[in-house]
Amino acid sequence: MSLVFGGDYNPEQWTRDTWLDDVRLMREAGVNLVTLGVFSWGLVETSDGVFDFGWLDDIVELLHENGVGINLATPTAAPPSWLHTAHPEILPFDADLYQQPPGGRNAWCPSSPVFRSYAVRVAGRLAMRYGQHPAVKLWHVGNELGGGNARCYCDVSADAFRRWLAERHGTVEAVNQAWGTAFWGHRFNDWSEILPPRGKHGAPNPGLFIDYERYSSDALMRAYLAEREVIQRFSDVPVTTNFMVGPGAQVVDYSRWAPHTDLVANDHYTLVDDPDRAIELACAGDRMRGMSAGRRPWLLMEHSTGGPSWQQRNRAKDPGEIARNALAHVARGSDGAMFFQWRASTAGAEQFHSAMLPHAGTRSRVWREVVELGGHLKALDEVAGSRVEPARAAMVVDDEAGWYLQHGLKPHRGLRYGRELRAWHKALWQRQVLLDLVRPDADLSGYDLVLVPTLIMVDDAVASRLAAVPQRGGTLVVTYLSGICDPTGRVRTGGYPGAFRDVLGVWADEFYPLQTEESVSLSDGGVVRDWTERVVVDDADVVLSYTSSSLAGGPAVTRRAVGAGAAWYVSAQLPGSSIEAVADRLIAETELARTVVAPAGLEAVRRIGDDAAYLFLINHRDEPVEVEAAGLDLLTDEKVGPATQIPAGGVRVVRTPRETEASTSGRA
Amino acid sequence: MSLVFGGDYNPEQWTRDTWLDDVRLMREAGVNLVTLGVFSWGLVETSDGVFDFGWLDDIVELLHENGVGINLATPTAAPPSWLHTAHPEILPFDADLYQQPPGGRNAWCPSSPVFRSYAVRVAGRLAMRYGQHPAVKLWHVGNELGGGNARCYCDVSADAFRRWLAERHGTVEAVNQAWGTAFWGHRFNDWSEILPPRGKHGAPNPGLFIDYERYSSDALMRAYLAEREVIQRFSDVPVTTNFMVGPGAQVVDYSRWAPHTDLVANDHYTLVDDPDRAIELACAGDRMRGMSAGRRPWLLMEHSTGGPSWQQRNRAKDPGEIARNALAHVARGSDGAMFFQWRASTAGAEQFHSAMLPHAGTRSRVWREVVELGGHLKALDEVAGSRVEPARAAMVVDDEAGWYLQHGLKPHRGLRYGRELRAWHKALWQRQVLLDLVRPDADLSGYDLVLVPTLIMVDDAVASRLAAVPQRGGTLVVTYLSGICDPTGRVRTGGYPGAFRDVLGVWADEFYPLQTEESVSLSDGGVVRDWTERVVVDDADVVLSYTSSSLAGGPAVTRRAVGAGAAWYVSAQLPGSSIEAVADRLIAETELARTVVAPAGLEAVRRIGDDAAYLFLINHRDEPVEVEAAGLDLLTDEKVGPATQIPAGGVRVVRTPRETEASTSGRA
Amino acid sequence: MSLVFGGDYNPEQWTRDTWLDDVRLMREAGVNLVTLGVFSWGLVETSDGVFDFGWLDDIVELLHENGVGINLATPTAAPPSWLHTAHPEILPFDADLYQQPPGGRNAWCPSSPVFRSYAVRVAGRLAMRYGQHPAVKLWHVGNELGGGNARCYCDVSADAFRRWLAERHGTVEAVNQAWGTAFWGHRFNDWSEILPPRGKHGAPNPGLFIDYERYSSDALMRAYLAEREVIQRFSDVPVTTNFMVGPGAQVVDYSRWAPHTDLVANDHYTLVDDPDRAIELACAGDRMRGMSAGRRPWLLMEHSTGGPSWQQRNRAKDPGEIARNALAHVARGSDGAMFFQWRASTAGAEQFHSAMLPHAGTRSRVWREVVELGGHLKALDEVAGSRVEPARAAMVVDDEAGWYLQHGLKPHRGLRYGRELRAWHKALWQRQVLLDLVRPDADLSGYDLVLVPTLIMVDDAVASRLAAVPQRGGTLVVTYLSGICDPTGRVRTGGYPGAFRDVLGVWADEFYPLQTEESVSLSDGGVVRDWTERVVVDDADVVLSYTSSSLAGGPAVTRRAVGAGAAWYVSAQLPGSSIEAVADRLIAETELARTVVAPAGLEAVRRIGDDAAYLFLINHRDEPVEVEAAGLDLLTDEKVGPATQIPAGGVRVVRTPRETEASTSGRA
Repeated sequence: MSLVFGGDYNPEQWTRDTWLDDVRLMREAGVNLVTLGVFSWGLVETSDGVFDFGWLDDIVELLHENGVGINLATPTAAPPSWLHTAHPEILPFDADLYQQPPGGRNAWCPSSPVFRSYAVRVAGRLAMRYGQHPAVKLWHVGNELGGGNARCYCDVSADAFRRWLAERHGTVEAVNQAWGTAFWGHRFNDWSEILPPRGKHGAPNPGLFIDYERYSSDALMRAYLAEREVIQRFSDVPVTTNFMVGPGAQVVDYSRWAPHTDLVANDHYTLVDDPDRAIELACAGDRMRGMSAGRRPWLLMEHSTGGPSWQQRNRAKDPGEIARNALAHVARGSDGAMFFQWRASTAGAEQFHSAMLPHAGTRSRVWREVVELGGHLKALDEVAGSRVEPARAAMVVDDEAGWYLQHGLKPHRGLRYGRELRAWHKALWQRQVLLDLVRPDADLSGYDLVLVPTLIMVDDAVASRLAAVPQRGGTLVVTYLSGICDPTGRVRTGGYPGAFRDVLGVWADEFYPLQTEESVSLSDGGVVRDWTERVVVDDADVVLSYTSSSLAGGPAVTRRAVGAGAAWYVSAQLPGSSIEAVADRLIAETELARTVVAPAGLEAVRRIGDDAAYLFLINHRDEPVEVEAAGLDLLTDEKVGPATQIPAGGVRVVRTPRETEASTSGRA
Repeated sequence: MSLVFGGDYNPEQWTRDTWLDDVRLMREAGVNLVTLGVFSWGLVETSDGVFDFGWLDDIVELLHENGVGINLATPTAAPPSWLHTAHPEILPFDADLYQQPPGGRNAWCPSSPVFRSYAVRVAGRLAMRYGQHPAVKLWHVGNELGGGNARCYCDVSADAFRRWLAERHGTVEAVNQAWGTAFWGHRFNDWSEILPPRGKHGAPNPGLFIDYERYSSDALMRAYLAEREVIQRFSDVPVTTNFMVGPGAQVVDYSRWAPHTDLVANDHYTLVDDPDRAIELACAGDRMRGMSAGRRPWLLMEHSTGGPSWQQRNRAKDPGEIARNALAHVARGSDGAMFFQWRASTAGAEQFHSAMLPHAGTRSRVWREVVELGGHLKALDEVAGSRVEPARAAMVVDDEAGWYLQHGLKPHRGLRYGRELRAWHKALWQRQVLLDLVRPDADLSGYDLVLVPTLIMVDDAVASRLAAVPQRGGTLVVTYLSGICDPTGRVRTGGYPGAFRDVLGVWADEFYPLQTEESVSLSDGGVVRDWTERVVVDDADVVLSYTSSSLAGGPAVTRRAVGAGAAWYVSAQLPGSSIEAVADRLIAETELARTVVAPAGLEAVRRIGDDAAYLFLINHRDEPVEVEAAGLDLLTDEKVGPATQIPAGGVRVVRTPRETEASTSGRA
Repeated sequence: MSLVFGGDYNPEQWTRDTWLDDVRLMREAGVNLVTLGVFSWGLVETSDGVFDFGWLDDIVELLHENGVGINLATPTAAPPSWLHTAHPEILPFDADLYQQPPGGRNAWCPSSPVFRSYAVRVAGRLAMRYGQHPAVKLWHVGNELGGGNARCYCDVSADAFRRWLAERHGTVEAVNQAWGTAFWGHRFNDWSEILPPRGKHGAPNPGLFIDYERYSSDALMRAYLAEREVIQRFSDVPVTTNFMVGPGAQVVDYSRWAPHTDLVANDHYTLVDDPDRAIELACAGDRMRGMSAGRRPWLLMEHSTGGPSWQQRNRAKDPGEIARNALAHVARGSDGAMFFQWRASTAGAEQFHSAMLPHAGTRSRVWREVVELGGHLKALDEVAGSRVEPARAAMVVDDEAGWYLQHGLKPHRGLRYGRELRAWHKALWQRQVLLDLVRPDADLSGYDLVLVPTLIMVDDAVASRLAAVPQRGGTLVVTYLSGICDPTGRVRTGGYPGAFRDVLGVWADEFYPLQTEESVSLSDGGVVRDWTERVVVDDADVVLSYTSSSLAGGPAVTRRAVGAGAAWYVSAQLPGSSIEAVADRLIAETELARTVVAPAGLEAVRRIGDDAAYLFLINHRDEPVEVEAAGLDLLTDEKVGPATQIPAGGVRVVRTPRETEASTSGRA
């Protein structure tokens, strides 16, 4: 077993001479897997029903001969021009019924039966031909499903939505009830009267909105499953598709798709204008791990060696950032690191996207760092298959809640679901405390600390299971706007945050979102922006109070002791300093272990193998950092410890015996 | 006669058990009127021509039994889904011919004969059934007409527009003349060539633009009148519709609709990010009074107990703000205060809109303040029917001028009509000087001071009547851009501000709008932003000069003595400090009475009843304010005076004998 | 021969009485040419095929009798309403297939055969009738072609585009190659599959994008040529059309149109919020001169006496700015100065556009300055026909490169082509060094200094000719992003800036565009924003280095000595101060002559006639400036020199003997 190293390979762009150059350089860099065929539909099915696999056979053999494994993609992200010309009706429509023109990616309606039949046919033909080929190690269905076609509002989708509603709700009357259509007089007499929430600028019924989000995720998942099924008829090779997961609400609910993949895979791109992008990356990695059953390794299917081309100002990575990023994913559970793409395109929309082999060629800094990373991953081969050590802290994350929070006529329309998640994750990351990001219905029994940020929509069962956390001695932290609504989007009455009012021992009656330039001060000197609310304490201690605005003197953060456990309520969008202070207290009270004790910016995660543990130490600081850790640094093959220095911007992966774990763990 | 207290009541959302709870709590709060049926079309006409009044009979009886009057709404703001499904052609089209999807409100073309026939039928059936019911106190046609459908650009509207043009102009040639179509070669040979000003981003002919605005207001008013007429066939109860009036240009010209209502009614929501929202509210109230013939009482049909849900950051009101807002409307002529809505929705688009009975229920602060307000209004019952004392200052306001100012290729495209109005109103509000906002064709003979801010479009008759103000000894204040155009939008030549050049004794030849970061200083030290212009004095005194830019040394504000009167010209968008200084001088020169003499932030208005006067004193400051006023404070039932203290954030309504008016009035 | 003075004259707007007033005032102001008929289509062709020239005959005779020449416009910018009603299909479609409504200008698809037949017919009828009339001095085809219809995406355009592609590329396979359609799987099997780059928000294939830009420019040029051809059948009078040229990328590639005009003409409007607008004007003038074969005089066809009406805040010009602007155009090669428009409209979309005769009439400041300018131009009559003295410095400008730079997924999506051009032009303008702006395929042999800013797209031939500049002893300055792509948009591999790597002796492997708030410091203390990159030196001297960011210590500006010549590379968007320092060194090294030696803000350009030279001295400063110049000031008819003072804001035009040129030229 090896860690995977490689990237998307699009040989259609190049001559055979270049192919030969490619495989030579892949060997040089240690590439062992490439994603092949993503954009090849028009080249393998040259016209309707006419298949030509000659060139693909060629490149498959060439890669195989050179020891490069293949992650074979169905080409359904890129319908050929002849298909769009013959069937323009498959192009998706946006909420304003503007039909997307051809020329992008994923330019098809997820519910289109016409597209489905073409997609299944080409996937099946590929599976028939290559399903048993020894070079094929993985199937890659489509590409970034949901990128461009996560929502379609056409009439075909409307029909499919009605069928989906009938499955979920049973009757039209049940839909009326769930959505509260009596308000604004939108009651439906018949299925045919129900439409997708068309019109970008309106304020659709919130129940309709959230059900259309769910339907859309399911519709696209069904498109994925249809391809998967035909592949499995001809091939035993694992099947996956590349998600696009970050900390916030995703385009579709990948966490529901995850059980239908044989390996959870992610595409992740840092945003160059985000000063905390390394932490955001870690947060995404922690979320991917939470999607993988039993914290099994997942796979980073795409990231970049430098500037992507779709951001506003696509900056190259700083020296060493390629390794720090790739190894941070591995540290958090990825069994390898892949890039988009192998060789930089010279034409096409992504001609300026960075690649493993950039425009400047092998004399470039990027190439040198890529080759070096290949060496690192080879040196870490024994890490493959190991699992990240179990976290004792979890954060509950839910796309449905995220969609709901961000849409429609909300108390504060500028809130973004990922923001609060990231703020709390950051405080723990800076303290080297590992956090699992999990679905609301995950098993929480192993966690001593459970964070519930802005989980606006929650069902009764989840609410009960979260309320049980303090009762069994754990600590529950709930932030503002959590528990407000049930899964239909209906507000729970009696005081906010409805579902958690009892366990928290507090309630709020009014929201005080702050205006753009407004701020409110706290009793710890912190300054709140964006969100405050009027909290009334029934049974809890006040940890922080508001000290300005008409809320002055009122509670901002409360803590209710519940036996050995505790239930915290955070009613404000706290500044980083206040979150850090709360985090320190939470870590102390719950006796959470820090992976190592080091200044903020030293990232530390441990993976546990059958025979050894692997401590990943990634230094994001501009100066060397020293931590207590002893063992063999697999990257340099040198013994380190008991005090180990990680150079500025450097990475170490220290192999230790499994039993010494505790000795290198600090206590907060 | 009583002051009205209540709100929109949408029982369709709730079970009968909740209804019983509702009427009990209405009695507790002193509610005496609810607006019923706004969103009920689909429940009373369950399919085309099939009517079911059972549930409505029920709730009408229940309310009646509990002594709650009914403001019965025709449900035409909310066409049922079956109607949109059968007749999608009634949905309005925007200027880009994008057709609005169903799911919002007022989703119908004002000129649609199909919609008209359905609307009249359902209104008629309601009037037949409930027109004589003793609980029905008022008819409420549709809801916020113009909210969502003020303009439609469909072909049906185009035809209606051509007929409207034929009525107004007579011949196509007259249209060509009025609009100056020779420019850009847009001459029409035939009615059929004339289209609505379609295309959001173009620069339509200004004459076409302004006529389409007028047509649109008229088209929607005709829809209102059609419902009113059928109601009047079956009912003698007064008929109105709820306007949406603030200080700026409105979506339709409600001032032209007002004569067609039996009671002028308004929906008013403060903007939470407006620090001067209490003054804006007062300005809207002063405008409503100006719309009501003879300054008769009007009615505040909707406002809110806290955050609405359609703003960006919907903050709750501060303690006491509910009472200050409601009573400020009453002070300025409203015979009551109603809210949207009685009980907070849990579902639907407005699920987060505040209500009289909020999500948190009766233990909430909002409920306590609502009950308290109910008590206040009961204590003020004798105020009902009294009129606000006559103002001696007026401001001329005109939606047509407002629309024209804000649209198309103007010298400064960022000017907003409401801005200048509010700036001058604010200076007088801060000085407790009452101002009537009136139409240009209003009778001005009673006013000593007439303000004319940015009235860009004016006809000759109005210009003459305004010019007469100084001639009869009054003071006229005209600001920049007033009088520039005639009612077709044509520029008056010979020097700006064309229609007022002679009375002002000055003219300008060039506009110097300031760029975003630019400012110009004045001789009083003030700093001007946004607007300056080159003024030449023929016969006037210079009050303020520019002291920077290429206009330095030139006049900024002039005053021409006209017998005992005066005509002022304000060529710049003055800063607040300069407006205040001018206001002080105007008050002194015209000997305007201040209602009381108090610091800015103490709002004071007097209503005059048959037997007594009622001095409303609303303290918007954070500290107590003392004024000279003696009598009975109706809210506390205690005698006050001669010096009366109004607590921070508090309100007093002091009943005084009618004859003592003068004694409590100050002089500036 | 005279300098031209006049403007657009649209008598359709006025009565005959006004016409008589007009010609009287034209004589008073010295107007000798007016542009007639721009918006008159519907008045000369009153319905399909029915022509009425009576009124036009009238005004033509009236102008002729008064000695005013006519620049006769074909009215095709303004299709009449009857044509749009009969043939709505001629209205252009935007990239989202939204069809522009009638009511603007140039509302026709450039490729429409229907429109073409109507346009050619009306142009032909005009040419037949007036082609021999002695008053007609010039033909003016349409108006601002490309303003409103530079791109159309309709199906007719799609067909025309396919034919254009077939001419350019030959086969579909060649298109696939050129555009690299293999990427994203967009390969075409057939012409019919190729569509315009529809969809505003996507990221179209870059090859498709740039070819559609080229096609669009050509399609519109063909529309122009069709009218020109029919005119030439009936008239020997020169034919032109008014361009809209500034420093940046234009709506169409006018430089390719220029050879098809008998006189190059431009419309130029300064942007009131641009503090460097006088320099921008000069830059546009320098570019116009570069378009005119042999630097022959061109003509300023439109500019303004004050605020235009299409900007956000349309400010009047400052005192003297009318003369400074008009004479700066003349200085840079325009044989006259015309305005839009003669008499200010009172109606229509441009009712607030400034004019020669403004709304305030002849008592206005504008009119006084217009009359004065007329006198100036008369005093300069002998300048007509003279040419601007040859510049020794050139800047390479190319709309295709500009379009490409600004569009699609670029390393920095906020770069604007005109910015870097203007920054370098400004440094030379401030030093009174003349610069020609020329096409990449221009003859560069006469230039000692050649600047190549951000020329992202360049073919091999141009690259070779630019590389030859230093080899023959000249100095070549290439800035970042130049030479990156070939004419299909394909990236040149091997290191940036591909085409210039060898001559510059440096290469870059990675781009470091800076984020919005980010900056990087330089070794000269300057602060860079927006763009930096990692440069590797093969053979060059480092002139400036980066001193912060991860590029610290790396080269920012390099210079490679090539015999007597030099090749500079500028890898950063330098701040003004650094550009000025580089400019000083370039001027010194290449011994470029300054026209006069004076502080920045004194603009100086010399035109050379057959018998004399004319030194234009325009003082943009707030204080007088003295320069060495002796001769006759034609504007005041007074002898000046050897030291001549130009008053603050003033202009002098000093006639000197041709041979004394050198004596008034400074050396840097």
